Amino acid sequence: MSKQTVFLVGATGETGESILRALLDDGSFEVTCFIRTASAHKPSVQRLKDKGLKVVFGELSDSTENLANLLVGIDTVILSIFAFDVGVEASLIQAASMARVKRFVPCGFGTPCPRGGVMALRDLKEVVHDQIFTLHLGYTIIDVGYWYEISSPRVPSGKFDYAIMVPRNKVIEGGTAPNMLIAKKDVGAITARIIKDDRTLNKRVYVCGDILTQNEINSIVEEKTGEKLELTNETTADVRKDLDQMNRAVQDDPSNLAHKYRLSNAQYNLSKYVRIDNTPEIAEYLGYIDGRKLFPDYVFQKFSDFVNDLAAGRVQRPYPHVSL
Amino acid sequence: MSKQTVFLVGATGETGESILRALLDDGSFEVTCFIRTASAHKPSVQRLKDKGLKVVFGELSDSTENLANLLVGIDTVILSIFAFDVGVEASLIQAASMARVKRFVPCGFGTPCPRGGVMALRDLKEVVHDQIFTLHLGYTIIDVGYWYEISSPRVPSGKFDYAIMVPRNKVIEGGTAPNMLIAKKDVGAITARIIKDDRTLNKRVYVCGDILTQNEINSIVEEKTGEKLELTNETTADVRKDLDQMNRAVQDDPSNLAHKYRLSNAQYNLSKYVRIDNTPEIAEYLGYIDGRKLFPDYVFQKFSDFVNDLAAGRVQRPYPHVSL
Repeated sequence: MSKQTVFLVGATGETGESILRALLDDGSFEVTCFIRTASAHKPSVQRLKDKGLKVVFGELSDSTENLANLLVGIDTVILSIFAFDVGVEASLIQAASMARVKRFVPCGFGTPCPRGGVMALRDLKEVVHDQIFTLHLGYTIIDVGYWYEISSPRVPSGKFDYAIMVPRNKVIEGGTAPNMLIAKKDVGAITARIIKDDRTLNKRVYVCGDILTQNEINSIVEEKTGEKLELTNETTADVRKDLDQMNRAVQDDPSNLAHKYRLSNAQYNLSKYVRIDNTPEIAEYLGYIDGRKLFPDYVFQKFSDFVNDLAAGRVQRPYPHVSL
Repeated sequence: MSKQTVFLVGATGETGESILRALLDDGSFEVTCFIRTASAHKPSVQRLKDKGLKVVFGELSDSTENLANLLVGIDTVILSIFAFDVGVEASLIQAASMARVKRFVPCGFGTPCPRGGVMALRDLKEVVHDQIFTLHLGYTIIDVGYWYEISSPRVPSGKFDYAIMVPRNKVIEGGTAPNMLIAKKDVGAITARIIKDDRTLNKRVYVCGDILTQNEINSIVEEKTGEKLELTNETTADVRKDLDQMNRAVQDDPSNLAHKYRLSNAQYNLSKYVRIDNTPEIAEYLGYIDGRKLFPDYVFQKFSDFVNDLAAGRVQRPYPHVSL
């Protein structure tokens, strides 16, 4: 049987590198990495070439014809691009349709959430879905919950600080909202499973490794480290106030990326802890199927195991170049 | 077991009267009809009262609190309002959430179609869905294809003219596109089944009575009547030209309802005959489940039986007050 051909956009990004690793580990995929021309000389791109990977260069804003030429013979396109860039892939979607790509996996890999003003990043993604659907292009939308890597509080000893991008020491609304969580490495591994399976074609699929409240997360961290966490409490009113402030900050200075991150974080807080959108129940309510049931043999890392890794210095801080 | 309480908005409309009849025939529902205050003295409303039905008056623009008061104790809300009015129900959706309504059936009852510029009426409906989802309100979205009542060509003898709103004598792109079709009376009957079933809660459901191309429709009509149809041919270019013309006409005179109907008809033509959206395959692609499989014992009228009714003078012309 010939290998499934995958065209991966964003292979050097946070989620993309997890996907690339899993596709290569699996062994049944022939991967082409699409890299922006401007990034051609980055060390991360050189590393792809050093591995003998097929790398093609271009821009997502290239003409549909040019992109379609790159997609000849491709079975599956996977996008894992910078969240705030979602929306630039319209030409690639047209090209995928033109080149008869069988399955388009848009940039998802986040938390389920209704459309229409709750989370700006979700609304961007849904417009991309419309573009796919309008072309009757085969698709799989994959959402995975929130990464373990950005779900942990810091501990007083500072031993987690090397890997903590956003310390989660604010306990929101009593810390009782359940949330779907996942290890970043499992995002890639389960994506490799999902795109090999016909049951996931033209479906929204959710998966997660654990479902925990903030209180449960904090208990696990305290138990594993023996440290007493320093926590503060936030109410819904605090979350909404933060959201209003960040909305204004982004309006005042739309080019400020740190403000965008903080606004996005505030929207996540509302969705995850106040609205409680990031659960299997809401995912299914929104039309997703349960990927855990489709792949019962796949063993996701549990959050408690992730904390072992965190304590042992084995976790990589996400987005090393971004400070919030 | 107590009866399911249904709050029906649009009971005197085309689809609404089919739904009301089916709910009453079924016998297991307690129906409240919501009527616009301005329509209180219409004969059609008096007929509802004469049947002993519970009728409440208000406006969909009323405050959420007032509407929520009307919804106390209601299990299911069904909206079947004038298609161009879709979008006015935001307050009712909030009210349904406030009153803990178990299932909200938004105004659907049309053809499946992707969102994002193909059909204006679909895009209006999808924004309503967003409002429902944002509240985590229980829902069932029901689509049924296109009515038999507006799918027939006229015959030269004129014997169908009493019931034909839009004669379908233009054969588009060779007449080979399959379309899901349904008798209007079946829309109500299957809706009654759907809202009694837990399997349809928080789902998009499609049903249809027949799947036919224009050529198949025309063969059935010729065979049943013994008349030779007078047909003309239209290409995709004709459909797009018509669409452009009607878009301009609506832009020039947004208050002209006939233009809106014709624009909508042109969008339907593109979706049904050029894009071929109105099929079970595309419905499932868009996330709908197949209501025919859920209710295998329900016998939908076939289009050929409908043509018997049409020939026998037993069909009512839809929208008797609208001329195109």
